[in-house]
Amino acid sequence: MNPETHRLGVVLFEGFELLDVFGPLELFGRLPGRFRIDVVGPTAGPAQSAQGPRAVADHAYSDAPFCDIVLVPGGIGTRRLVEDQAFLGWLRDWSSNAGYVTSVCTGSGLLAAAGLLDGFRATSNKRAFGWASAQGRDVEWVPEARWVEDRNRWTSSGVAAGMDMALALIAHLYGEELAVESADAVEYEWHRDPTWDPFAAKNGLAPG
Amino acid sequence: MNPETHRLGVVLFEGFELLDVFGPLELFGRLPGRFRIDVVGPTAGPAQSAQGPRAVADHAYSDAPFCDIVLVPGGIGTRRLVEDQAFLGWLRDWSSNAGYVTSVCTGSGLLAAAGLLDGFRATSNKRAFGWASAQGRDVEWVPEARWVEDRNRWTSSGVAAGMDMALALIAHLYGEELAVESADAVEYEWHRDPTWDPFAAKNGLAPG
Repeated sequence: MNPETHRLGVVLFEGFELLDVFGPLELFGRLPGRFRIDVVGPTAGPAQSAQGPRAVADHAYSDAPFCDIVLVPGGIGTRRLVEDQAFLGWLRDWSSNAGYVTSVCTGSGLLAAAGLLDGFRATSNKRAFGWASAQGRDVEWVPEARWVEDRNRWTSSGVAAGMDMALALIAHLYGEELAVESADAVEYEWHRDPTWDPFAAKNGLAPG
Repeated sequence: MNPETHRLGVVLFEGFELLDVFGPLELFGRLPGRFRIDVVGPTAGPAQSAQGPRAVADHAYSDAPFCDIVLVPGGIGTRRLVEDQAFLGWLRDWSSNAGYVTSVCTGSGLLAAAGLLDGFRATSNKRAFGWASAQGRDVEWVPEARWVEDRNRWTSSGVAAGMDMALALIAHLYGEELAVESADAVEYEWHRDPTWDPFAAKNGLAPG
């Protein structure tokens, strides 16, 4: 149990995946006494998602406040960013003192490319697992997992899995009861078991 | 099966619920050949969600293009809008020729207040069911349902239920196979049965 408010920073970029961002932010954002959300992006202002609709960054990367929980989404924009050393250097620096460094979907490819998963176990989207697991080095990639928690690195599988990880993080920080209440409030059936992953087998990453 | 592209308009307002909007837009937005998304709001530009993060409207209500699918989210902002006759009049006019008029969560309260559910069956968020069902007249409210389809009015239960309804609408328009593929692609466990609703009983709206 943890009484303080966590400052949670989510990283937008051109081509971010909508639900990777807004699934978790729905859950964290319902609890303003527990989580203060900062949205950061290439510049303060709109960034376009992979699906088209735009969201607004509160701060440019260069002005991002310190956040003790970092959330990195996936989306098609990750394919370019793993080659962008300025972005990766910023992400590494900004995340270096965070209490929790988390990702949804192919966001773990960005964390890996930034070196933030070296020495950690991690997972990613099951349809982009080969791409994600080719980023960075010294990561123990887990092909069958809804999400993976390894010390302060939490990485989820694709897109919708970010909501299950977000609820698990709420449970970890504030207790199981608040996570169950949060899931019920948004009428979401929480998959509480991090090893539940039917999508691994569907994509040839686990026995069917 | 329907080969044409549907123009889908989603209605933002101050205090919209994040996942009501971005759960369905994740699914529709993955299929740009089938759905063209227009985001409309009080003005073109940012609108703040109930959870804090902002999204961008492409068009002001007054300039909204005709959309053959209308999607109205819920969120705390609905409580004010049911008293806003200018908004309700606009929504009624804008939706009057749409092929499908849909809502997520307390968005059905807005549709009801605008008279758009008169003579239809509908559902809403199970924690705000009393409020939603007090809006408008001549609506047959269904207390236990993940979503309700009645001719061209599709209304879902709270927040996460919008994703199940969106997948059902994809199946209705383009076939079951595309809906299953869409759910798998985002690693979402689709609840295909519109009568699946454990949240009704949890909120005293059905036998436990």
